[in-house]
Amino acid sequence: MASAVEPTYWLGKDTLRVSATLFAENRLGLIEGLKVKGGLQPRSVVVLQGGEQKQRYCTDTDIVFRQESFFHWAFGVTEADCLGAIDVDTGRSILFVPKLPESYATWMGRIHPKEHFQEKYAVDEVQYTCDIVGVMSNLKPTVLLTLRGQNTDSGSICREASFEGISQFQVNNTLLHPVIVECRMIKTDAELEVLRYTNKISSDAHKMLMKHVKPGQKEYEMESLFKHYCYTKGGMRHVSYTCICGTGHNASTLHYGHAGAPNDKTIMEGDMCLFDMGGEYYCYSSDITCSFPANGKFTAEQKAIYEAVLKSSRTVMAAIKPGARWTEMHRLADKVHLEELVKIGILKGSVDDMMKVHLGSVFMPHGLGHLLGIDVHDVGGYPEGVERIDEPGLRSLRMGRLVRERMVLTVEPGIYFINHLLDQALADPAHSCFINNQVLAHFRGFGGVRIEDNIAVTESGVELLTCVPRTVEEIEEFMSDPGSPFSPVNIQ
Amino acid sequence: MASAVEPTYWLGKDTLRVSATLFAENRLGLIEGLKVKGGLQPRSVVVLQGGEQKQRYCTDTDIVFRQESFFHWAFGVTEADCLGAIDVDTGRSILFVPKLPESYATWMGRIHPKEHFQEKYAVDEVQYTCDIVGVMSNLKPTVLLTLRGQNTDSGSICREASFEGISQFQVNNTLLHPVIVECRMIKTDAELEVLRYTNKISSDAHKMLMKHVKPGQKEYEMESLFKHYCYTKGGMRHVSYTCICGTGHNASTLHYGHAGAPNDKTIMEGDMCLFDMGGEYYCYSSDITCSFPANGKFTAEQKAIYEAVLKSSRTVMAAIKPGARWTEMHRLADKVHLEELVKIGILKGSVDDMMKVHLGSVFMPHGLGHLLGIDVHDVGGYPEGVERIDEPGLRSLRMGRLVRERMVLTVEPGIYFINHLLDQALADPAHSCFINNQVLAHFRGFGGVRIEDNIAVTESGVELLTCVPRTVEEIEEFMSDPGSPFSPVNIQ
Repeated sequence: MASAVEPTYWLGKDTLRVSATLFAENRLGLIEGLKVKGGLQPRSVVVLQGGEQKQRYCTDTDIVFRQESFFHWAFGVTEADCLGAIDVDTGRSILFVPKLPESYATWMGRIHPKEHFQEKYAVDEVQYTCDIVGVMSNLKPTVLLTLRGQNTDSGSICREASFEGISQFQVNNTLLHPVIVECRMIKTDAELEVLRYTNKISSDAHKMLMKHVKPGQKEYEMESLFKHYCYTKGGMRHVSYTCICGTGHNASTLHYGHAGAPNDKTIMEGDMCLFDMGGEYYCYSSDITCSFPANGKFTAEQKAIYEAVLKSSRTVMAAIKPGARWTEMHRLADKVHLEELVKIGILKGSVDDMMKVHLGSVFMPHGLGHLLGIDVHDVGGYPEGVERIDEPGLRSLRMGRLVRERMVLTVEPGIYFINHLLDQALADPAHSCFINNQVLAHFRGFGGVRIEDNIAVTESGVELLTCVPRTVEEIEEFMSDPGSPFSPVNIQ
Repeated sequence: MASAVEPTYWLGKDTLRVSATLFAENRLGLIEGLKVKGGLQPRSVVVLQGGEQKQRYCTDTDIVFRQESFFHWAFGVTEADCLGAIDVDTGRSILFVPKLPESYATWMGRIHPKEHFQEKYAVDEVQYTCDIVGVMSNLKPTVLLTLRGQNTDSGSICREASFEGISQFQVNNTLLHPVIVECRMIKTDAELEVLRYTNKISSDAHKMLMKHVKPGQKEYEMESLFKHYCYTKGGMRHVSYTCICGTGHNASTLHYGHAGAPNDKTIMEGDMCLFDMGGEYYCYSSDITCSFPANGKFTAEQKAIYEAVLKSSRTVMAAIKPGARWTEMHRLADKVHLEELVKIGILKGSVDDMMKVHLGSVFMPHGLGHLLGIDVHDVGGYPEGVERIDEPGLRSLRMGRLVRERMVLTVEPGIYFINHLLDQALADPAHSCFINNQVLAHFRGFGGVRIEDNIAVTESGVELLTCVPRTVEEIEEFMSDPGSPFSPVNIQ
């Protein structure tokens, strides 16, 4: 039973307090989902395995632990090497924690009794992982429900719970995955509150960068400052994904920032910045992109492309509501981009004809947006029966289903000038007939613009979670004003 | 062949330029080492496998890549998923890089030709990993030397190079490991230069914390600021190990800071801080601990313990030179601690008698220091034939051999008040007879003091790589002076 004082995750100061009831509610939701789904036997027990502490290669250098996402969703446990069980009939939750050797107290800290974890995580029971076979046997389960299924973004199969002695139980590893995925996709009020917070902190961090950026700095200085803001102000030890700090032509590399392209360019006068970064709090993510000129003042060309993307962002957001087809939202963004590129003069001809040959994907090869939650590319985009549309652009869309209330999504249209895609298009008569190459030539090396917001789907539309300057005027005013209408990190 | 302009790793601004010749020299050293060692056949070819890009669990969220240490030592390659070969007879080096799909250019960045890598890393030849069998066959090797051996700190076995088709070659996986480990242990001039740099940046970061820390802040704010300084000023995307920001009683948890104890305490008036952090540049590490009062002013008790540790640090450093026995250096530190604890009044009786019962390990349960290099606990501490001494304290010493010129080591004596070790000692008549429990009681909850420097062993003594205020007077003066005699990160 939970103790009288409600257990809460909190990192102090202005960081968010997250009640352990968030996870109790998630577990209840899972049980309901299982009961609705056919095939559930009485005395079924869900078993989930938490993440393990890993080291760098063969060394003893620990990699800072981050909990496995399904386990986090169900238990909210920050420690490594745990398992958890949920008795579907009774709703009882059992957390299994490692029994630590005495030396742990010297090297790693106080060895907490089981009661400590029971109180901290408001579970019904805590046992040691080494005792799991006995504890599970006492439940006399007909079947253990373990988690096996494919992540539709990575293609990887999730790691099924396992422990010595599991072979003496009946195991079903197919029932759980689709149900828990559906549960994770629909956010509770408590989860929305955390996602509002991750967006608030990450938005403020982006705003700090807009104030701070100057030609002559290195891109990685922006990554460093973003992370510092999120951690020191927001208690975010992790970011949701590798920071993308592309400037100038690097803005056209969609996943710039990895070890092969590690944000190491010097920011130049005249560069557009495309900063795609999000902080993570208590394993809940955010995913925000701001695009703006490094010197704070848009050129005519930068303004034209930026406003084309902003128009598609706002058009799409106005159209999103429960029941909307996400693939159509993607097409809508494409359509607005093409219309605007005609106005700018880069394209010519009928936009409807351009749509037929998927010309939009030359300028936006990625999908419009994806589900967001404990994973930045959150689960649930393609359940069984929903197939990817195998067309340029759409085949990269990470969600193929209808929009539902309480989904949290990114909306991230972009226009990029990616040389090899432009060259391909120019070499293909079906595409090149629409392209005014003389105008296009001015935009080679421009990089790109992405405007990425996070939204929660409401009963009738969307709640915008991200809060950063978005129009050209807002950005220019914000970047030129030395005053700081937000809270910067205060260092000397 | 290397190009005319010397290939260099450099992150711009004031970051260090590291020539690719560092790794060419390492490879030459390895070849010499192999030739000296018995059992080498003509036409042997070394094959090393680089690290792979990994994801968080089953998701597509990439974990920021950090190269595998042996591979880095030999090739200095920052990209994932490579292999490397060294022809022992000719000295020729071949780097194998992945052949990237066209879509890489859209998502990840420019696809570089093989020549790019040949120039970037100054290797003799670059080939695609998919062509490795053919390339290796053309070398007509009698045997491939692959890397298999145990890391003496983690106990883990390193991952041996492997590729499809390797079974058609003769493979020897025992010859290479001990030789490359010996090579890594003895640092070249070029490597020392990098380690001086990692120490310089990390020292400055520690100094910034000393200026910045205030009661009321969270420990993790110090972790965040340290990382930000190292990255933004020093180009250090990674730290060498999980940051330890223990304050008050947390300073007595030797490896505080992990996910189960994540630097989340509020720093209190009267707390001692024990900050053990080091930045990593181009995979070379640093490992520095500073201990000081959060409010900048030592109490009499804090001063007494601090100066006891400083005395042992300085005594040991004066004794280190080639030929010194590292286990004896550990014992020397213990001896000074015990002598000083007698002066403080916590202990009473004969220090020689205390040494016989290993009383020092109650206050310093860890080893005096360890090898440092590409790994923070660098390889080479226990080669075949050198056994760990199974005594309290010494059994945690990560190096058991004689000191040699060009070793880089940490010297990190500490005195801690760890309740469960103190209670054990008090319950053991062989220990309790030396303890003045009334005095000791004043120090319960004190936490601990560690003073950790990095040194390079010279012909006749040591070069101190770390540069931070160390005496009580230096620290108090430095922390009270609002002026900043170093370069802080400049944020608004």
